[in-house]
Amino acid sequence: MRNSRRGEVDPFIVMEVMEASAAAEQEGRHIIHMEVGQPSTPAPAAARDALAQALKDEDPLGYTVTPGLPALRQGIADLYGKWYGIDLDPGRIIITPGSSGAFLLAFIALFDAGQRVAMGRPGYPSYRQIIRALDLEALEIETGEENRFQPVPDDLKDLDFDGLMIASPGNPTGTMLGRDEMAGLIGASQAKGAAFLSDEIYHGLHFEGRSVSALEISDDVVVINSFSKYFSMTGWRVGWLVLPEENVKQVERLAQNMFICAPHAAQVAALGALSGFDELEGHHAVYARNRQLMMEGLPQAGFDRIAPPDGAFYVYADVSHLTDDSRAFARQILDEAGVAVTPGLDFDPIRGHHTLRFSYAQNTEAIEEGLERLSTFMAKRG
Amino acid sequence: MRNSRRGEVDPFIVMEVMEASAAAEQEGRHIIHMEVGQPSTPAPAAARDALAQALKDEDPLGYTVTPGLPALRQGIADLYGKWYGIDLDPGRIIITPGSSGAFLLAFIALFDAGQRVAMGRPGYPSYRQIIRALDLEALEIETGEENRFQPVPDDLKDLDFDGLMIASPGNPTGTMLGRDEMAGLIGASQAKGAAFLSDEIYHGLHFEGRSVSALEISDDVVVINSFSKYFSMTGWRVGWLVLPEENVKQVERLAQNMFICAPHAAQVAALGALSGFDELEGHHAVYARNRQLMMEGLPQAGFDRIAPPDGAFYVYADVSHLTDDSRAFARQILDEAGVAVTPGLDFDPIRGHHTLRFSYAQNTEAIEEGLERLSTFMAKRG
Repeated sequence: MRNSRRGEVDPFIVMEVMEASAAAEQEGRHIIHMEVGQPSTPAPAAARDALAQALKDEDPLGYTVTPGLPALRQGIADLYGKWYGIDLDPGRIIITPGSSGAFLLAFIALFDAGQRVAMGRPGYPSYRQIIRALDLEALEIETGEENRFQPVPDDLKDLDFDGLMIASPGNPTGTMLGRDEMAGLIGASQAKGAAFLSDEIYHGLHFEGRSVSALEISDDVVVINSFSKYFSMTGWRVGWLVLPEENVKQVERLAQNMFICAPHAAQVAALGALSGFDELEGHHAVYARNRQLMMEGLPQAGFDRIAPPDGAFYVYADVSHLTDDSRAFARQILDEAGVAVTPGLDFDPIRGHHTLRFSYAQNTEAIEEGLERLSTFMAKRG
Repeated sequence: MRNSRRGEVDPFIVMEVMEASAAAEQEGRHIIHMEVGQPSTPAPAAARDALAQALKDEDPLGYTVTPGLPALRQGIADLYGKWYGIDLDPGRIIITPGSSGAFLLAFIALFDAGQRVAMGRPGYPSYRQIIRALDLEALEIETGEENRFQPVPDDLKDLDFDGLMIASPGNPTGTMLGRDEMAGLIGASQAKGAAFLSDEIYHGLHFEGRSVSALEISDDVVVINSFSKYFSMTGWRVGWLVLPEENVKQVERLAQNMFICAPHAAQVAALGALSGFDELEGHHAVYARNRQLMMEGLPQAGFDRIAPPDGAFYVYADVSHLTDDSRAFARQILDEAGVAVTPGLDFDPIRGHHTLRFSYAQNTEAIEEGLERLSTFMAKRG
């Protein structure tokens, strides 16, 4: 049968790493997973208990209303009070099937075919793939270390674009935009009549300073977030959008047709998770410890050109002094050190030949073991 | 902020009914719900038990591989053996976030912007809304009672189309295509080089004869199904696609970017549901009883022009001898009889002024009470 052209998205290079590491494990080798983009912890007990109770009560868990359970929308609005001191109308929140669903909805609701969405490179690869699949054009801005691998207003001056998407903390770099930097980008977008979209999926996971929400600066922005990372609920597929009031109706109608609703059981669990902050701050403390270990151990091993990892659970390293082929290098590290790492190519098809992403989302013991293996590998390599 | 043109989808008229019936209930009135498109029963105990166990085990329930849990894909492949006597390669199955996710994926993977997808009218309204949102064109074929409100090969003769989407049992009519009818449509599509998509979401819920899968006739078709209806798991958002082998890779890559995976907890429950057939056949028997009551009670009340309800849990009635305005008529039935029904306009914007959809997905007691109320209402109306 036919395949469409817009459906021809690029494969993820990281899949090769994951398949190779799974194959190594099947051969009985022990692998340290620094390639994964998700916590190894389950949803907090408060989340699991809430769902277990609903199952026990034989709650039908049928369709929810499209924007999501009212209590969950209220709980998320309260989170904006707690985290940012913002008074947010829950009517502006739409619960989505993961942040993935939020991207799909926002891109379709805001942009017509052929329109241009700007974003920094390196960045999360699915942005550009979804954009392609929806007949939009991705305008990638090559970001520099001097700007913490984030776009700056100067990059936008001569650019013709309909939307700007930023991520802070970013994936793969973990770098954050300060309040002034964020305000500068919002202002530059609004001056051009472009939509401003802020991917805040790693919020809550910051280590020096606090992650700034675009909503602290303007109401005329679209914020994308999810329960996946801070709340340790990747596989549950619950995310959300915060929209300007005048966009809510269009997005709600689209969501009704595209998704009906986010998974009900996962919404029940997510509502529970909003009472699980003690457990979640425990995870946060583990990541902080892991990050400290990485910031000491990676340079000692020889990976000393790293972006400032303000948040998320990644370190992005320039390895141009070590290799011209990050894909082969990652493979060598897996084979010889037993550590799975991600070559930068998914995030930056151009400069990614010279970069690696190390994740520290696993437990501290694994991180310590991984750093030791990397150190031994690099010493042997000479 | 901007709204896109393609995002301007039509509102659902049924939402008015649902809001009005919710308002009536808040005023203390008792409403019989014949407007809903979902079972009132929870997921089968086998599904709930499987998930409860995973929660107890502190299974992290992180991302699954994109095509879904291997055991679930195998279980679905086995279902094709059980239901249709087909030996299906589980590698051709992709688990999706509901059948909604399956539509999005299939439409993007198969069709480029501007291409034309034919479908019968009346039909499930989200087909045309999603198609519009993805810059495709919906070609609606007005179907006739003489063809059980399903398209026939003659309708396609002079049509220029890139895909044909059928639904059997259909929503809102509940009518089914027999094997010969299905084969005729598949042949007519393939002769034109068009993709054939079969929405089989109501399979398992048939009352005379058995629902026929497009896969019984050809491997070069796309089948969309879900755990929502027969398996009583609407809010869980687990569906699936069966694809020709040569389309699997493209759809898998797209799904990776668009969804990452279907909700893990729901996949665990769905796998459990595949051991819940005793309970599910109990529901099936309730629907069969309800259908019998509807086929007797609706004509007695005066709704005697009904499509043959072979499957699903709907009766679609022509009310042109009773009203010119199904929307006002549905409102009157709600206000005066306390029965919520769906005007046909969502399914057929043209002829839907003269039709109503009655759902019998609720329990038998509610159906009996609803039919009595409708009978009294119609008698009073004279």
